[in-house]
Amino acid sequence: MKNNNKYLKYYTKETEKIDKKLAQLLVKRQPDSLYAPCSYILQSGGKHLRAYLVLLSTKVVGGKFSQANNAALSVEILHNFTLVHDDIMDSAEKRRGRDTLHIKYDISTAILAGDSLIAIAYKNLLKDCIINTTQILNTFNESVIEICEGQSLDKDFEVRDDITIDEYKIMIYKKTSALIQMCCSIGGQLGNGTKAEIKALENYGKNLGLAFQLKDDLLDIIGDIKDFGKNVGGDLIEGKKTFLFLKALELATGEDKNELLKVMANKGIKKNQINKYKKIYEKLNILKITENEINKYTNLAIKSIKNLKDSEEKETLIWLATYLINRNK
Amino acid sequence: MKNNNKYLKYYTKETEKIDKKLAQLLVKRQPDSLYAPCSYILQSGGKHLRAYLVLLSTKVVGGKFSQANNAALSVEILHNFTLVHDDIMDSAEKRRGRDTLHIKYDISTAILAGDSLIAIAYKNLLKDCIINTTQILNTFNESVIEICEGQSLDKDFEVRDDITIDEYKIMIYKKTSALIQMCCSIGGQLGNGTKAEIKALENYGKNLGLAFQLKDDLLDIIGDIKDFGKNVGGDLIEGKKTFLFLKALELATGEDKNELLKVMANKGIKKNQINKYKKIYEKLNILKITENEINKYTNLAIKSIKNLKDSEEKETLIWLATYLINRNK
Repeated sequence: MKNNNKYLKYYTKETEKIDKKLAQLLVKRQPDSLYAPCSYILQSGGKHLRAYLVLLSTKVVGGKFSQANNAALSVEILHNFTLVHDDIMDSAEKRRGRDTLHIKYDISTAILAGDSLIAIAYKNLLKDCIINTTQILNTFNESVIEICEGQSLDKDFEVRDDITIDEYKIMIYKKTSALIQMCCSIGGQLGNGTKAEIKALENYGKNLGLAFQLKDDLLDIIGDIKDFGKNVGGDLIEGKKTFLFLKALELATGEDKNELLKVMANKGIKKNQINKYKKIYEKLNILKITENEINKYTNLAIKSIKNLKDSEEKETLIWLATYLINRNK
Repeated sequence: MKNNNKYLKYYTKETEKIDKKLAQLLVKRQPDSLYAPCSYILQSGGKHLRAYLVLLSTKVVGGKFSQANNAALSVEILHNFTLVHDDIMDSAEKRRGRDTLHIKYDISTAILAGDSLIAIAYKNLLKDCIINTTQILNTFNESVIEICEGQSLDKDFEVRDDITIDEYKIMIYKKTSALIQMCCSIGGQLGNGTKAEIKALENYGKNLGLAFQLKDDLLDIIGDIKDFGKNVGGDLIEGKKTFLFLKALELATGEDKNELLKVMANKGIKKNQINKYKKIYEKLNILKITENEINKYTNLAIKSIKNLKDSEEKETLIWLATYLINRNK
């Protein structure tokens, strides 16, 4: 990918606009007890990848950004709803370097803020639904349902010790990929793309989402705390059964296998044990295997859109896929 | 109202159908960890007033029940979402005589079940949206937002001791009435009613909702535990600032006023104090004043639809208004 900066500038420019709109969206609305918490989460930044995918997908099929500006806000609002409720369920205390909503306020406030964000997301989406309304809304609905199913599976997995890698992939598809796929799909629908174009965009989003989540799993173990904003090895400390962990469990034998089984039995490890597990991962070639898996899905994403008409947005979608898997945070 | 039984039979017949459909809706869907809790709440019965209002409103403007069957399920699903999340926020342990969802399962499960019920409600609503889709969806969205605002105000009021009756009415409008108004509105829209017909139905729903909630406040103090399923005086025990309490506070002087102020200062009363407060209410004529208020809103509801074409459904809507305020549970 040459000329990386051009695409990054393009991305940054659009996401800064989205950031400003999100930050302003609910300011001054009453009651303050509901909208101040909503604004707090909408003002917490983020990559705004999902919004950008809506915009690019609209334009890549021949539409304009202006046809999808509200839909782009909508998917970010929906994404923030999932973060707020997931953080309650995961008892997470920090998000993007700030207190999570239920820590800053309380659990009831966070539940209610999340609920209202769902309706506000639908409201904003509807503003851009001039054509294909029922189909777009159905796509949106189905992804909300998938996200809930994914979160439910994720919670199930916490207490199971026999999860297969296939099951894990279904879970991350539902929990992470389905939303990214939906962004590409509704972008294509808002831009009045053909069935084939929309299908191509959906496949792009689905595979991009899988690559994205696997990269997240990988960054947990190779990331730099300064860049990544989370503690390295946090997934191991919490006993999360990530792709890396499940793959290691599949490949390990003898003492290594016993050490991995202990992570599940003890529901996590101590901070000073991270290096031991990192070495097991290295010995089993897990980091390389994960990278290969990420590359596989990235290539599938890029291949999915090869028949779309050439355009700057198509180039940007291709760039975005490689940019995301090369990120270090 | 003559021939009460005819209308009641009609209501019972339709709500039994709704009850069966709700009970079956999510059975066998996977993952069980998400859908079993959803089914648990959808199988908990209830009056299905909201669903019935959708059906009646569709037919009263010339449509058919079959145009609104899914929408009728949708509003019940949405209503159940609010119950599940409100019960978490209120730490309620019982609902319709059974454990609340977060007691039966846990808080995370209840949050997630509620979230998915929102999307499932939208999904079912969309099935019936053949005409006026954007307008119907906007009506639905706005009511979800109002419900969240109402719940937020309700929580605000718990820690405030200067709530006016006007503020209280705004809160119950948002928390209870807005949904009932929405049911009548989308029913009218699904039936392709005129603007005037839809406005009439909205006013009917709004006033019916207010009468309904005020009756709920009244039943807390006059209801029979056997009929009402809750402890008589529960609102006083919890220190809830209902219409009765706020009206009493407005009218009381001297020692009575001090006793009422104590309810707020102590955030509720003991069970053995209920009779003392019931006597204060009686002395201040609060029960009669509340009944008058309920009658006022019931009459406004009935008056709202006087220009609708005469039909069995119009008669049923009128009957329903008086039936609801004469209920003893």
